[in-house]
Amino acid sequence: MSSTNQRGTRLDPWLDLYADRANGMRASEVRSLFAVASRPEVVSLAGGMPNIDSLPLDFLADLSAKIMRTQGPKALQYGSGQGEIFMREQIVEVMRYDAIRAHPDDVVITTGSQQALDLVTEIFINPGDVIVAEAPSYVGALSVFRAYEADVVHVPLDDDGLIPEELDRTLTELAAQNRQVKFLYTIPNYHNPAGVTLSEERRPHIVEICKRHHVLILEDNPYGLLGFDSDPLPALKSYDPDQTVYLGSFSKMFGPGYRIGWAAAPHAVREKLVLAQEAAVLCPSMWGQMVMSEYLTTYDWYTQVKSFRGEYRARGEAMLEALAEYLPECQWTTPTGGFYTWVTLPPGVDAKAMLPRAVTNLVAYVSGSAFYYDGRGSDHMRLSFCYPPPERIKEGVRRLARTVHGEMELVEMLGTNRIDRPNNTVQFPAPDQV
Amino acid sequence: MSSTNQRGTRLDPWLDLYADRANGMRASEVRSLFAVASRPEVVSLAGGMPNIDSLPLDFLADLSAKIMRTQGPKALQYGSGQGEIFMREQIVEVMRYDAIRAHPDDVVITTGSQQALDLVTEIFINPGDVIVAEAPSYVGALSVFRAYEADVVHVPLDDDGLIPEELDRTLTELAAQNRQVKFLYTIPNYHNPAGVTLSEERRPHIVEICKRHHVLILEDNPYGLLGFDSDPLPALKSYDPDQTVYLGSFSKMFGPGYRIGWAAAPHAVREKLVLAQEAAVLCPSMWGQMVMSEYLTTYDWYTQVKSFRGEYRARGEAMLEALAEYLPECQWTTPTGGFYTWVTLPPGVDAKAMLPRAVTNLVAYVSGSAFYYDGRGSDHMRLSFCYPPPERIKEGVRRLARTVHGEMELVEMLGTNRIDRPNNTVQFPAPDQV
Repeated sequence: MSSTNQRGTRLDPWLDLYADRANGMRASEVRSLFAVASRPEVVSLAGGMPNIDSLPLDFLADLSAKIMRTQGPKALQYGSGQGEIFMREQIVEVMRYDAIRAHPDDVVITTGSQQALDLVTEIFINPGDVIVAEAPSYVGALSVFRAYEADVVHVPLDDDGLIPEELDRTLTELAAQNRQVKFLYTIPNYHNPAGVTLSEERRPHIVEICKRHHVLILEDNPYGLLGFDSDPLPALKSYDPDQTVYLGSFSKMFGPGYRIGWAAAPHAVREKLVLAQEAAVLCPSMWGQMVMSEYLTTYDWYTQVKSFRGEYRARGEAMLEALAEYLPECQWTTPTGGFYTWVTLPPGVDAKAMLPRAVTNLVAYVSGSAFYYDGRGSDHMRLSFCYPPPERIKEGVRRLARTVHGEMELVEMLGTNRIDRPNNTVQFPAPDQV
Repeated sequence: MSSTNQRGTRLDPWLDLYADRANGMRASEVRSLFAVASRPEVVSLAGGMPNIDSLPLDFLADLSAKIMRTQGPKALQYGSGQGEIFMREQIVEVMRYDAIRAHPDDVVITTGSQQALDLVTEIFINPGDVIVAEAPSYVGALSVFRAYEADVVHVPLDDDGLIPEELDRTLTELAAQNRQVKFLYTIPNYHNPAGVTLSEERRPHIVEICKRHHVLILEDNPYGLLGFDSDPLPALKSYDPDQTVYLGSFSKMFGPGYRIGWAAAPHAVREKLVLAQEAAVLCPSMWGQMVMSEYLTTYDWYTQVKSFRGEYRARGEAMLEALAEYLPECQWTTPTGGFYTWVTLPPGVDAKAMLPRAVTNLVAYVSGSAFYYDGRGSDHMRLSFCYPPPERIKEGVRRLARTVHGEMELVEMLGTNRIDRPNNTVQFPAPDQV
């Protein structure tokens, strides 16, 4: 190695020094959209921000002040890398709604469940290893998998969620190709982005198939408590705890502001997760754990969850009604909870190409291509109904319909809506302006 | 790949599926000690917990309640992956104390500065790449470097910090061996664990040497504001901003409970850090940023920092006096700030072997071996004076002296204190009992 300083570029003097994995990192399509979504004149059907306006702010203000006054030096201090025992005990109680019987020892508190996703991937994935995931799958998970240089193989889902036969067939094929499959990443409840839920009948089959193929299940369940009308179905983990790492989050049943999520893992996996967690951030936020714990103990949090359910149900219904009224040319999934519906565009209409013109029409969504590892999916879009109020959602779908109809005319005239003209891209503001 | 489930073990069915990097993860010596340190009867000279009892709790309680009441839905929501602009602007002001002139665009807020360490390592290190670090170096950094399968080459320091000639010689040798050096990891101020500070004279030399060898500087500065009697020396970053990624933290100048730290990076590096950060945790805690920002705006935080300085100075002096009185057989560094002193044991006394007997004598420390990548260092121990009050520190050193003197007798009798008897290990409680 020479000792001259000639190997970077003028724009980036460190270009030659990045790790291989850094080449896979790129801004997600969702990320730039968060910026657009923040403009008041745009109806955003793009983001996944929970609607938390109904949280009891006065109650939480008093609770926060009390914790600071009486236990401030503890709440502002470092804590255990695994997370505090009082928080882990309460998480065990929360997971009973998913029919999970866990022990507090097997829970690791993380900086949002996103960090749990990152840590599980860190301890299992060598470059080139295969992760099996639904087609489509959560964009934030795909970013993590890319950072660890995994290969993702998608398995189709339908209105009842991941299709067991397709999973079995895919795992058998991968085994025949001698490819190392480490885990199935799945969102059984109110899927992001597909909006569907894995049926109760399919659940034990999925577990059995993974067990037979010696493939771990990574079960991501941020929306489980947010069924419009019902308590959650039993988690995959409830059928075979040792087969599954379960990820949970307070971001949707409370709010994301403290960044508190968790993993419930088989015992030996949990030990590695704690070590990885300590290396990554030392410990999760003590303040966040103490406030969340006090809230769960002293407030009727499940009634609050039911209030969230009612709000999301109203928003979801508004979106489905508007789709039926304004966009009969499309197809969409019918969610029974969560934040999203997955829309199939009319033949030939490309969601990615359409997006700048949708934004010009003051509505935003996420192109389906964000939810595939291989760039597929731009015949779909994800519409989220979590954040804007019902009337805004209807207005947004109306604007979207106008955009889609314009694209259909382009397709009819030109055979495609992927037209190349100088101003067909939108300049997004920097993410810090969100 | 067969599809049977025979490849794990009964204790860990997933043993065969871990990533290579997971093999490098192990519990640090410091970690198990946090548990021991929590027992009230033990004087812990082991941990690195800041002493934050003097924080203005009533003020912070009112401030917290006000933010929740007036801006709760914002404070509990997701935010920007890079961190909020108001927080980054204030961080730029805080870094002026280190003579750094930065732009808010080049700051990335992280989950404590530990996460910044993790992200920088993630984007630069391929397995086998070399990181150059002081001998000794921060145990939490070594854990991160191990997780990314880096090789660490230590460079000696003395009472004036990292030795420029040794750094130059090491980098030249590594270049001659054609080994890829990615960055120098260094703690210039009040070094953890060595307790020394890089002299002002050496600083431009270190920067010049790294620049000449095309090696990035990763400057970790958690303790910079905690000089006993003085404001900080200019940061390495202040000499050449594009040469250095600077890590800062509110954990020591305020408290660690919100997990808010930051990296200030050259522009192109910053872009990659934001992408890595978004994949890892989506965004840092909005609540933590809003409270920290309001505290910095509305409280005389620098006077609070000066109050911390006085407390640490008193504790540091108590420790040095007690060492002089009880342990004249040892040598130690003389810190002018921060949390630690680095003690050289009498010839033949092994710090790791001594530890169980020290704990039996109700005092805890960290063996110097924790601070080397290669297991060296057990002729040293790190003593921290940050947390116990001065009288307890003196009592701790008295107990430690009794232990050391016992070990010296063992060395005289047996030629070593590394004796193997059944009960020479301590059963540490689980970390969640800290």
